[in-house]
Amino acid sequence: MAGRAVRAEQVSATRELILSAAERLYAEHGVYAVSNRQVGEAAGQGNNTAVGYHFGTRTDLVRAIVRKHAAPIEEIRTGLVERVVGSTELRDWVDCLVRPVFEHLAALGTPTWYARFCAQVMTDPALHRIMVEEALGSPALREIVEGLRRSLPDLPDEVQAERGDMARQLIVHMTAERERALAEDTATPRAGWQDAATGLVDALVGMWRAPVTPRG
Amino acid sequence: MAGRAVRAEQVSATRELILSAAERLYAEHGVYAVSNRQVGEAAGQGNNTAVGYHFGTRTDLVRAIVRKHAAPIEEIRTGLVERVVGSTELRDWVDCLVRPVFEHLAALGTPTWYARFCAQVMTDPALHRIMVEEALGSPALREIVEGLRRSLPDLPDEVQAERGDMARQLIVHMTAERERALAEDTATPRAGWQDAATGLVDALVGMWRAPVTPRG
Repeated sequence: MAGRAVRAEQVSATRELILSAAERLYAEHGVYAVSNRQVGEAAGQGNNTAVGYHFGTRTDLVRAIVRKHAAPIEEIRTGLVERVVGSTELRDWVDCLVRPVFEHLAALGTPTWYARFCAQVMTDPALHRIMVEEALGSPALREIVEGLRRSLPDLPDEVQAERGDMARQLIVHMTAERERALAEDTATPRAGWQDAATGLVDALVGMWRAPVTPRG
Repeated sequence: MAGRAVRAEQVSATRELILSAAERLYAEHGVYAVSNRQVGEAAGQGNNTAVGYHFGTRTDLVRAIVRKHAAPIEEIRTGLVERVVGSTELRDWVDCLVRPVFEHLAALGTPTWYARFCAQVMTDPALHRIMVEEALGSPALREIVEGLRRSLPDLPDEVQAERGDMARQLIVHMTAERERALAEDTATPRAGWQDAATGLVDALVGMWRAPVTPRG
């Protein structure tokens, strides 16, 4: 039994090394520019089939990285949603939408790779469905979408959907751009992740409240 | 002399075939998932060194695709800027920023691949500099940035820069998402490219006018 526990711990440690190495390499070079063999080497695995053995295909590995981060992000999101249940104040719900990812990145400490990894996956023709599926599986996110809708009762459904898409794109790509700037040590408009989140919340509140031009 | 002209025409036709094939394959599969040999085959080139012969490296090929579209986009942009010179009305400058790419895509006719291609290049760690360099080379874009600044005299410089980044991300990724939806025949919030541009202009005007939370 003790041997089995040690073995399980070793497997878990190996999986974690592979996940971290893959996330970093994918973020820096792009998912398709990196082979499973390169991931295995970066994770210190002598056996060049280790990645396939532990995770299966590249798609499975990408999904495992997404899931690893989804749990702590969902926890922050649930905590924020609990504080504003019943609110019809737009800013409350935009906070719930934006802050979890920014807070998660802040908690990881510098350097991070997850934001650039997500931007790559979201832009990939084949992989972006993984992100969509994970988002659909979040109960807190469904509550936020409902909260946004209730705070903007006059916004037509299709404009609500359109602005939701814009918010999602900005969360993914503004975090990735900031993370890249930090990694390359170039200037960023904001000092910290919290402050950057405030900048995005300000912008999205204005965006969602913007008057809608009638169809031409 | 006639023989030389025919040869130049053949070279030009071959280059055009390669550019179109590469743009389509990169848009659909991602830049690094596609080899030069696959591009050559899709362009009907029997010789599998044709891509290298005509364009050099993959980076050179990506730059050539960007430049092919940059010229007609800059022409639309210049025309729009001429109509609003001296304006301090924010919406005029947001129109100048947003509409050229949407109008270019509309003019290409369905299907297009350029929007997805741009999203991939913008998200790629190594290739995104190509897009930045091309943007910096546009005189009309510099006028638009100045026009935006003059229309928002009270916005702090760093927030102006931050919201400019957000606008750029939305132009790239909302066009790509719409193009993908059209290619996959799934629902889009807007009937046409013009209408989609209006939706983004509405949102960006609201975003740029949004009140700024003082630094915490």
